[in-house]
Amino acid sequence: MCSRILLSGLVGLGAGTGLTYLLLNKHSPTQIIETPYPPTQKPNSNIQSHSFNVDPSGFFKYGFPGPIHDLQNREEFISCYNRQTQNPYWVLEHITPESLAARNADRKNSFFKEDEVIPEKFRGKLRDYFRSGYDRGHQAPAADAKFSQQAMDDTFYLSNMCPQVGEGFNRDYWAHLEYFCRGLTKKYKSVRIVTGPLYLPKKDPIDNKFRVNYEVIGNPPSIAVPTHFFKLIVAEAPTANPAREDIAVAAFVLPNEPISNETKLTDFEVPIDALERSTGLELLQKVPPSKKKALCKEVNCQIVVRDFSNAAIKQSKDVKLLPPPKKRN
Amino acid sequence: MCSRILLSGLVGLGAGTGLTYLLLNKHSPTQIIETPYPPTQKPNSNIQSHSFNVDPSGFFKYGFPGPIHDLQNREEFISCYNRQTQNPYWVLEHITPESLAARNADRKNSFFKEDEVIPEKFRGKLRDYFRSGYDRGHQAPAADAKFSQQAMDDTFYLSNMCPQVGEGFNRDYWAHLEYFCRGLTKKYKSVRIVTGPLYLPKKDPIDNKFRVNYEVIGNPPSIAVPTHFFKLIVAEAPTANPAREDIAVAAFVLPNEPISNETKLTDFEVPIDALERSTGLELLQKVPPSKKKALCKEVNCQIVVRDFSNAAIKQSKDVKLLPPPKKRN
Repeated sequence: MCSRILLSGLVGLGAGTGLTYLLLNKHSPTQIIETPYPPTQKPNSNIQSHSFNVDPSGFFKYGFPGPIHDLQNREEFISCYNRQTQNPYWVLEHITPESLAARNADRKNSFFKEDEVIPEKFRGKLRDYFRSGYDRGHQAPAADAKFSQQAMDDTFYLSNMCPQVGEGFNRDYWAHLEYFCRGLTKKYKSVRIVTGPLYLPKKDPIDNKFRVNYEVIGNPPSIAVPTHFFKLIVAEAPTANPAREDIAVAAFVLPNEPISNETKLTDFEVPIDALERSTGLELLQKVPPSKKKALCKEVNCQIVVRDFSNAAIKQSKDVKLLPPPKKRN
Repeated sequence: MCSRILLSGLVGLGAGTGLTYLLLNKHSPTQIIETPYPPTQKPNSNIQSHSFNVDPSGFFKYGFPGPIHDLQNREEFISCYNRQTQNPYWVLEHITPESLAARNADRKNSFFKEDEVIPEKFRGKLRDYFRSGYDRGHQAPAADAKFSQQAMDDTFYLSNMCPQVGEGFNRDYWAHLEYFCRGLTKKYKSVRIVTGPLYLPKKDPIDNKFRVNYEVIGNPPSIAVPTHFFKLIVAEAPTANPAREDIAVAAFVLPNEPISNETKLTDFEVPIDALERSTGLELLQKVPPSKKKALCKEVNCQIVVRDFSNAAIKQSKDVKLLPPPKKRN
């Protein structure tokens, strides 16, 4: 599966359903030139526009259009919000043996909440998920944030959520993948995980054209339902050799649909540059290739299926579905 | 049409095809809190994470994921590029009576070209359009940049283009709308136009769910085909009263499909906050409502149909389709 993927981008990602979604894969020779916000310098020396009273940047006195990303800096994760899809672009976490060993938080005391730092017109709402048929799918899971109640509560912001298929995905295979990530802290003293949504093109069997097709939940429709999710795992400081500078890396892309537990995790492994092309993001661009080792050559990249279903349903029932009305001060 | 649109977001935008695309429309009470790039400050005072060796921002030593927008500052326009769709988010232009009166450029000397400042893996390619069935649709039109050959050549960067339906849209109704915008310089000494793509949800008549569905052209598929396009027009300094501080504003959203010339331009007019919700952008946020006048109350917002078809086809034939191979230095 992997070599075919490299050739034509990541095809055949559907777990056992023969879906051919495509992540795209070309090499990038150049450095990123990042120009934040209104560039002040003139485009080039032979500037003619001024003699015709033309000054495009004059528009910025009315405000810079953006897009603006709301970065939220939480205890266990940082999230970067996409106002157009009302999902995060990415959420990056940090887990350690110490943080996972702690038991200072209880899911019963956390509840889903809207992220009020995000302007209301761009903010995902609790009601948008109501009867949508989708789970509020944590990108940074609550189970990774047991070291403080604040850290766990933060994971329940909707800006850390995406609509996920519940049965067979969010409550099953995806949870097993989260569990696999936690297990890495037995071998590495520090594990970083970047998680986020994807909206991948799929080949139309009739006209062979590629199309992106996803649902939007809410009324008016507001939150995009991703076709796939990615996890980029960066394992640092192996317990056996904490001083090692290399990092062990693996990226996985899973379809937002029920996945049978028999499916090998490595079936979802993708090259990082294919993930970059599909997300438009730059990932680990400052790490020389020689310093990036293949995680799945150092550990057995495989999910461990626990009898997760009942435990999860009991726990998720304890979570208050709607926040108590705010006390008027 | 307009009031129904305000109530439930912008429905019924299809020109005579009864398509119900939805632009979304809620009020926004709060200011934008914009946090560019890695926030340095700690999330909150009772920081626990450090006692468990948790530091999410430690990831940024490997590079900031972005998204990064490539802002291109040209003579007649500024463009902001979306690396995920490989289209611009927006292109903002500035035209004046003087700039449109000048005849210092000839389209024959311009040719379509890739924007090499954008990293190759995110860069729209000429071959992606080849036999795609779509026009390379200027967002800032060449006809608005006749005051210098450089300005006109700049409009032919693919980072100023989106895939557009040619017959009936890019070469017809859309061109008439561009012509309407130029006509405004007869009444205003300065006209600013923000143009860009939209990917709007459409109601599925079978299950009543909203879905976004768009084609992606290129092999591997790279450039998204927008479902709609918007133009936000800001007319400043009316010739009759150049000192006036108010601005006259109108926003239009057109489906990327053939539109009959009989269709009223005002059928496509939308409230600016609905455009914001659908793009995730902030538009004219620094302009107090009292300073924003309705353009279509000051001028007759109507397209003027010229016998554009032949002239356009003859002109577009003169444009060299593929750039001559670069001389090896």
